[in-house]
This record gives sequence, C-alpha cells and structure tokens, in this order.
Amino acid sequence: MTPFKLTDELLEQIRELIETRQDADLHALMEEVHYADVAEIINELNNEQATYLIKLLDSEKTSDVLTEVDEDIREGILKNLSSKEIAGELEELDTDDAADIIAELPKEIVQEVISEISDREHAKDIVDLLRYDENSAGGLMAKELVSVNENWNVLTCVKEMRQQAENVTRVHSIYVVDDDGLLKGRLSLKDLLTASTRSPIREVYIPKVDSVNVNEKPEEVAKIMSKYDLEAIPVVDEIGRLVGRITIDDIVDVIREEADKDYQLAAGISQDVEADDSIWELTRARLPWLFLGLVGGLGAAAIMGGFETMIAKHAILFFFTPLIAAMAGNVGVQSSAIIVQGLANDDLKGSIANRLVKEMMLATLNGVILAAVLFLFTWAWQGSFPTSTAISVSLIAVIIVAGIVGTFIPLFLHKRGIDPAIATGPFITTSNDIFGILIYFWIARLVLGI
Amino acid sequence: MTPFKLTDELLEQIRELIETRQDADLHALMEEVHYADVAEIINELNNEQATYLIKLLDSEKTSDVLTEVDEDIREGILKNLSSKEIAGELEELDTDDAADIIAELPKEIVQEVISEISDREHAKDIVDLLRYDENSAGGLMAKELVSVNENWNVLTCVKEMRQQAENVTRVHSIYVVDDDGLLKGRLSLKDLLTASTRSPIREVYIPKVDSVNVNEKPEEVAKIMSKYDLEAIPVVDEIGRLVGRITIDDIVDVIREEADKDYQLAAGISQDVEADDSIWELTRARLPWLFLGLVGGLGAAAIMGGFETMIAKHAILFFFTPLIAAMAGNVGVQSSAIIVQGLANDDLKGSIANRLVKEMMLATLNGVILAAVLFLFTWAWQGSFPTSTAISVSLIAVIIVAGIVGTFIPLFLHKRGIDPAIATGPFITTSNDIFGILIYFWIARLVLGI
Repeated sequence: MTPFKLTDELLEQIRELIETRQDADLHALMEEVHYADVAEIINELNNEQATYLIKLLDSEKTSDVLTEVDEDIREGILKNLSSKEIAGELEELDTDDAADIIAELPKEIVQEVISEISDREHAKDIVDLLRYDENSAGGLMAKELVSVNENWNVLTCVKEMRQQAENVTRVHSIYVVDDDGLLKGRLSLKDLLTASTRSPIREVYIPKVDSVNVNEKPEEVAKIMSKYDLEAIPVVDEIGRLVGRITIDDIVDVIREEADKDYQLAAGISQDVEADDSIWELTRARLPWLFLGLVGGLGAAAIMGGFETMIAKHAILFFFTPLIAAMAGNVGVQSSAIIVQGLANDDLKGSIANRLVKEMMLATLNGVILAAVLFLFTWAWQGSFPTSTAISVSLIAVIIVAGIVGTFIPLFLHKRGIDPAIATGPFITTSNDIFGILIYFWIARLVLGI
Repeated sequence: MTPFKLTDELLEQIRELIETRQDADLHALMEEVHYADVAEIINELNNEQATYLIKLLDSEKTSDVLTEVDEDIREGILKNLSSKEIAGELEELDTDDAADIIAELPKEIVQEVISEISDREHAKDIVDLLRYDENSAGGLMAKELVSVNENWNVLTCVKEMRQQAENVTRVHSIYVVDDDGLLKGRLSLKDLLTASTRSPIREVYIPKVDSVNVNEKPEEVAKIMSKYDLEAIPVVDEIGRLVGRITIDDIVDVIREEADKDYQLAAGISQDVEADDSIWELTRARLPWLFLGLVGGLGAAAIMGGFETMIAKHAILFFFTPLIAAMAGNVGVQSSAIIVQGLANDDLKGSIANRLVKEMMLATLNGVILAAVLFLFTWAWQGSFPTSTAISVSLIAVIIVAGIVGTFIPLFLHKRGIDPAIATGPFITTSNDIFGILIYFWIARLVLGI
C-alpha cells in the first residue's frame, strides 16, 4: 500500500476543480481516496469549497468524512446543509457516530433533522443514545450489534444474522440474550462455523461474557478492553439488558485522547488544543499555568528578599538559586510522572508510606551523587569549604523534599478522586521551586552560622 | 461483569493453598479467573510459588498468563521449566507471542525448545518470525490468518476456512492471494455469509486492501490502523507476498507504550521504568536528566557570577532569577509539547517559518500580559520604576525567545530524523534556563544603564 500523502499540488488541483465546477473530474479523483484522507483534504479547504465537495460526493462516503474532519470545520459545513441533507448523512452512519454529530447541532434544528431520517428504527436508536452522558460507556456505544435468542437453533441464528449483519459494519461476537433481553453470553463466529446447524443456541453458546455497565467511565472501558484483549464489549443497562456495543476503534481514540491530555497537563497546557488552533485558544490554554509560574516566581523572590542580609557576604549563594529551583522542579516532575503513570496503568501496589520511603531512598542516592559533583565545582570556583558544604548539603535536602512532594501529591489527589495528571508539570514545578529555595537558604544559614 | 480485584486476602489464600499443596482447591479457585488476572496474581508471588502455579494449571491458560506477566517474573519462571515444558506452553500461543518469548530465552536453550515443539508447522512459523526486527511490522505480526486462493469458489472457501479458523483466535478478514502467494484483496465475513456458495472468489473479493510492509515501523502501523479504523492489517514482504497479520490488540499496546515513553521523556525519565522497579533501575533512568539540569544550573551560576558587580546596587534583580528561569522553562515546555504532539499525530501543516511567527505572536501576547502583572508587583514592592521596567521588559524578551526555542528544537530534531519527544522536558527547560538568565541580565543592564 502506498500511503496517501496530501501534497500542495493535489490540494491546488482540487481547489481548481471545485472553482471551475468540474464535477466529473472531482468524482473520478475522489473515488479512490479513503474517507479519512478526504477528511484531511477537507480540513485544508475553506468552508465554501468544503461544502461544495461534501454536497457533490455520495453520502455513503461523506458521512464518514464528516465524522473525521475537525470539529470547527464540521460545524461550518453542517451550517450550509439543510436538515434533510444532514439526515441523509446520518442515515449512512452507525448510531454512535450519528448521535455524536447530532449532539453538536444547534438545539433548534435537532428535532427537524431527526424527523427527516427515513429509517425510523435508526432514528429511534440514535435518540436512545442521545440520553447518555458523553463521558460514559453509554456515550461511546453503538446500537449496531448482532444478537440472537438463546431459544433459537444454529440455522435460524445464521439466517437472522445474515439479516442483522447488513446493518453492522463489523461482526465481532454474536451476543446471546433471553426473552427479556438480558445478556446471557456470546457465540463466536468460529463456533457458528463449526457447529451443526440443528444445535440449539442454548447448548453452544459461551455463558461467560465480559460486559460493561452503561455508566462506566470510558477510561475504565479502555482499561478492561485492553487488559482482556477484547475487540468489542457489550454494554448492559442497570438490570443487565443488552443495550449496545463498544468496539476497539472507539477505544483506540479514547486511549489516544487520554494520553494527549496527560501529556498536555504535564506540559502545562490546560485545554485540549492543537498547534493549528487560533492564538486566542492557545493563549487560553497556556496562560493559566504561566500565571501560576509567575506567582511561584514572585513567592521565590519574596523569600529571597527575606534573606537579603546574606547577599553582601555570600553573594555566591544567590547564584545557585536557579540551580536549586531547577533541580527541585526536575526531581518533583520525575517522581510525580512515575506515580501518575503507575496510577493510570493500575500497577501501583503497596501503601503510600512504602512509596514515600522508597522515593526518599532514591532521592538520597541521586542527591548525594549530584551534591558531590556540585561540591567539587563550587570548591574549585570559590575555594570556600563552608560555602560549598552549605550549597551541597542543601541540594541533598531539596532533592529529598522535592521527591517526597512529587510522590505524595499525585497519590493524595488520586485518593481524593482528583485526576493526578494535573499534579505533574507546572503545579509540582512551582511548589517545588518555592520549597526548594526556602529550604536552600534556611539550610545555608544554618551551615554557615549566619 | 464484576471486575476482578486482587485483594490481599485472595493473595494470602492462594499462597496458603500453594504452600499446603492443595492442588484441587487451587484448580477450582483459578478455573474462573481470566488469564490476565492470573498474571496479576503471579506478579505478586515469589518465584517458587509462581512456578508451582504455572506447572499446576493447564498450558492452555498458563501460556497466555506467561505473555502477560512482568518480564523479570517470566524470566524467573522459565528458568524453572524444562525445554519440553516451555515448548508445551509455546504450542498453545499464537506465533507472534511465542516468538516474543523465544527471543527472551537464553541462546543455549532456544534450539532445544524449538525442537521440542511437536507441531512442526507452528515451529516453522515461529522460526520465520524470529528473523524480523522487534521494532518492525514483521516483529509485531502473527502467522495466524485465514487466506484463500482467488481461484476457489465460496463453498471451497468456507470449508477451507473452517479448517484454518481452528488455529486462528479471531478471524477478521479473509485475505485473498493468487497462486504465487501475492496479496490480491480481501473478503469480508459478511460478504461470505451473503454470497451464493457457487460464486468464484475472484468475483466476490474486494481488490482494494490496506497492507503494510514487513519493514514498516510499529508507530507507522499504529497510525495507519487508527486512521483507517482497521482491526487487522495484512503484512506483505518486499515483493508483495502475504506473510502475516497484525491485529489491533497489539497496536493498542504499541500506542500505550509510545504514549508512556513520550510522557516519561517529557518528565525527564530516560528509560522505560515503572514505579515498582528497583531503586537502581530508577536511578539510572532519572540521574542523566538531573545531571543535565545540574550542568545547566552551574551554567546559570557562572552567568550570574559575571554580573556580580550589579548585586550591590540591584540585589532585587537577583531575586527574580528563579522567576525568569521558571517562566522560560514553562513557556519552552508548552510550545515544544504542542509541536511534539502535532508531529506525533501528523497534523502539522505549513512551514517552520510560519510556526515560528505564530509562536512569536503568541509568546508576545502572553509575555505582555504576564509582564504587566510583574511590573505592578515589583513597583508596589520596591517603588523603582527603572528596575520594574527592566525586569518586565526582560520577561517579555525571555518568553519570546523561550517560545521560539521550544518551537524550533522539536521541528529541527524531527527534520533530522530524531525523535522530537526527547526535546520536551529537561532538555528544553535547561537550555531555556540558561538563555533566559543571560537575556534577563543583559537586558536589565541595558535598561538600567549599568
């Protein structure tokens, strides 16, 4: 497969074809292009061109394109489509994607769009999905699935499946339900291929099936599916009725978004932004953390102001404040990152006390090694044994405290039900800057006997 | 589904049963436990207990358990198993998992283990896989797949599939090959269910099929599969012959590992470590970046030493060095994180120059807002207009430079083929600390006319 590459030439050609209304050529050109690639193209067009292309191509393709384009681009295009046209796109989509798009539409037109969907069963399923919180298994699931009654036999089952399969893009498992719709188990395609056609389903199905509750958080669903290597998982309501199915491709998106969010939090970006967002959006995402850093810096300045009398005799101490602050920040970020990741992957065992003792030993080891280097450098530079001792001893203390703070804060946040990912990055860095400088000057004063 | 929870009581009970050799009870207890959960249990047992449990349970289950346990635990257990026992486990595994385990075995016993595998076809497939680089599509793929010849008809195809499906845990697509084994297209299960049994395959298959080359990088495979929402992708060799298949569950692991690695790099952790690794391993992962930070701090101290004459008259300038360094670091990390993520998700368009101009505007906006706050604070504190001006103007300059450095470095590394993720975190922080302090004192001297 030669991967699709969006070149400037191709984009220019498409813009040209749109401007000159060469529909046949456009059709021919886009025929072979995957919808995910068409979405990439659309992301680069202006609203008018994008709308033209969407209206030109078949709904079968454009519906998928619409789910893939950036949210603001989609919003712009949907504004230019009639309710009937939007309904036409939704008919081609799986219920979960259709519900996601409807959730983005202006309230006034939702009713009308839904009433224009000609497949009433499809419309009903979409409306059902609108009830669920976006941030839950119910908000992720689709209604498309293949289910059979435990009282049927394999032959009926295959017939029924052929019919249901028409609406289901990917058949993973066949779910078995009882007369009340309660999920009883599953049937693998393999079993179905190899079982005799007269066997009753109740004798061939596997009664053990993993499922999640509609209210489960997406991150939990992702953890379960990736731990148990599942490609699809049935979703049940509060009384165990089969209500939908989540497939792994949606979970891949959840995992990516989670990872992106944690990465951005660690880097001090408070909202989901991309490099191509507007300067205003990027400022809103970045300024809050910078402001926190500023307040931390002012705190550090105030602390140093309190030690002003030392500056005449021991100016060298002041030269090392950036070093102390940087080390405190780095150690804090390292230890918090390891804890945040351990919590995210559910592989932290043992008590908080054990963690803290371990981090303390680790920080002491790192601290002593780094302090030795620092000692040699400062001694060579200034030749003062007490000053070098003061700076080096402080460094060890600062690293230990920074490690403990970095370990404790995410564990504490997690215990309180707050996402610990918020703790890495600027939050830890800033608090450790202040702690570090305070400890540094305090110990230096002690050692130097000022 | 009630999710499995590994409690201390359960663990105690299992240890007790192992010590007292109550095999029947152990069997009964573990019967209902999923292999991924058994792996969690094994991770908590000592080597002797773990080996006992692995030997007790059926290979059908323990083989999967072995793929899930931590690498060092697996190594310990495999040491206690004979080559014949290891071969027994490998027989139950898919070829990709089996090859991964063999790659971890000591060289001396590999030959013997392979010769003990009684299914020679399976052994041959595993040996084939050993040839591929771990960090390539070939290293990820499994040999288990269902393929049919384009010259067969649907009936032959179904018969053949039933047989092949016995060895394939999950059938996704049926791949169509010609007489030379070249990948021609695919056949969906749905098509097969709905097509007439007498149709020749060449008339019903879909000639368009995504595939990847054996030498493709895992991250690229992950990008392709998640972009095109694929659940499995066939792997072809240099001349287009179908040689294997990669499934989405392996890709989920790749995505998670990638994300973990980038997160750790951003936090200044240079190796793949977990909170439960030894203090020695954690030190090796953390010390290099701390050392870099130390060198940066020494550089900053040396720079400040060069401005020592200013300290008598303008001590306040020195109080703000941690603030300046922190802001330079934060801005650098933010801008580099956005670029790194944009590069990872392939959604950066436009030239480097455009990026830099945009970041410069953004940094100026943020810088002016933050500098205004800083100005008011320092003025209120010290009442000196020139000093406040010097500090605030410097802050703007530092933020702009930090933003540019943070944007440029990852783009530059990427262009040179180096993973830009290495640029966020300590690398950017440290260089921006030094740049920041240098610019700060230089501008302050200019403004204050010293």
